[in-house]
Amino acid sequence: MIFISLEGIDGSGKTTIAKIVKEKILEKGYDVILTREPGGEEISEAIRKLILDKNNTSMTHWTEALLYIASRKQHVDRKIIPALKSGKVVICDRFMDSTTVYQGYARGIGMAEIDQVQNVVIGSAKPDLTIFFDINPKEAQIRLTSRVRSADRLDLEDEKFHQVVYEGYQLLISNNTDRIKVVDARKSVNEVVQQVEFLILEALEERLKKS
Amino acid sequence: MIFISLEGIDGSGKTTIAKIVKEKILEKGYDVILTREPGGEEISEAIRKLILDKNNTSMTHWTEALLYIASRKQHVDRKIIPALKSGKVVICDRFMDSTTVYQGYARGIGMAEIDQVQNVVIGSAKPDLTIFFDINPKEAQIRLTSRVRSADRLDLEDEKFHQVVYEGYQLLISNNTDRIKVVDARKSVNEVVQQVEFLILEALEERLKKS
Repeated sequence: MIFISLEGIDGSGKTTIAKIVKEKILEKGYDVILTREPGGEEISEAIRKLILDKNNTSMTHWTEALLYIASRKQHVDRKIIPALKSGKVVICDRFMDSTTVYQGYARGIGMAEIDQVQNVVIGSAKPDLTIFFDINPKEAQIRLTSRVRSADRLDLEDEKFHQVVYEGYQLLISNNTDRIKVVDARKSVNEVVQQVEFLILEALEERLKKS
Repeated sequence: MIFISLEGIDGSGKTTIAKIVKEKILEKGYDVILTREPGGEEISEAIRKLILDKNNTSMTHWTEALLYIASRKQHVDRKIIPALKSGKVVICDRFMDSTTVYQGYARGIGMAEIDQVQNVVIGSAKPDLTIFFDINPKEAQIRLTSRVRSADRLDLEDEKFHQVVYEGYQLLISNNTDRIKVVDARKSVNEVVQQVEFLILEALEERLKKS
């Protein structure tokens, strides 16, 4: 029925918030799925393993980006589109904007280049609404270091990289103000949940009015 | 120095001919490499394994296409471009046209869609010359059945598919008459070698005149 993506840097709290919001939207009587790439899709999982393999240090940025898009396409066609068609609210933790920002902006491929490819491949499954969890990288880092995480190749990135990612998101948002809404992710869990729930319910009401 | 790709349906003889022609061009004093995807590039090999895995029957056509392009990009950046920069003649057995024809045309994604993606990703490494080995699918099939081959997912395709691929190549050639030259692959090995050698030497001479 409606497709919502969540974006933000690591440590922005989007994954925690998403789980709570999903329950709240369910309580309102909507059928909701919360997913994230690779989304349990077997082939997407296999592609993801390749990307995160610490031995693959010679992978070019473009190859990495294409693998993310390949994994995403599989997730879109096998899981997201069928769920939308059966009338579900689909909330996806990270989607195409992550590749535009991480590979396009931060890795330097170019946001326009990534957009061109993604528009061709998954343009028909663009989110109706994207919620950006706004927190600066330093504050997010403090949250992250308090977590125990398994180290993979992406965790070897330095703080500067996260700053560049944050800049990329700002640029993306300024070019997509209709689709991307920003929530203040520094606030308490309850407050952020409220903001996100409000945005999703608002988008749902608009959608129902149209149909 | 110059980048040449070889295209054609399976059984067109291009792989056999390429090995002989490579030696002939070497004898003329040029530094030549003959390569094919994944080209010994470790990450390309891993991607290729995913594509050919018989268990991956639920792979969407777009995901398959993106994996080929990801593998190709790695091969281009790590092997083809460095070889060209060091003054070598690079002959590649199958390149971007294979994806345009197999996934774009025969699988039905659309040749224009595949072209859009490939132009963004590997547009700067387009072949200077592409040689198409022309033989109809029925004659090619007779050659193939006399070979012992290991069965992989792609071998499960039927004859009709090869006919569609052949049509796709015809369409591609008609839109790229400057770049793609056709040789009659039904002739004897010696005759085909002569045709291919002539085309490559002609392209080399033109290149040397320009530089």
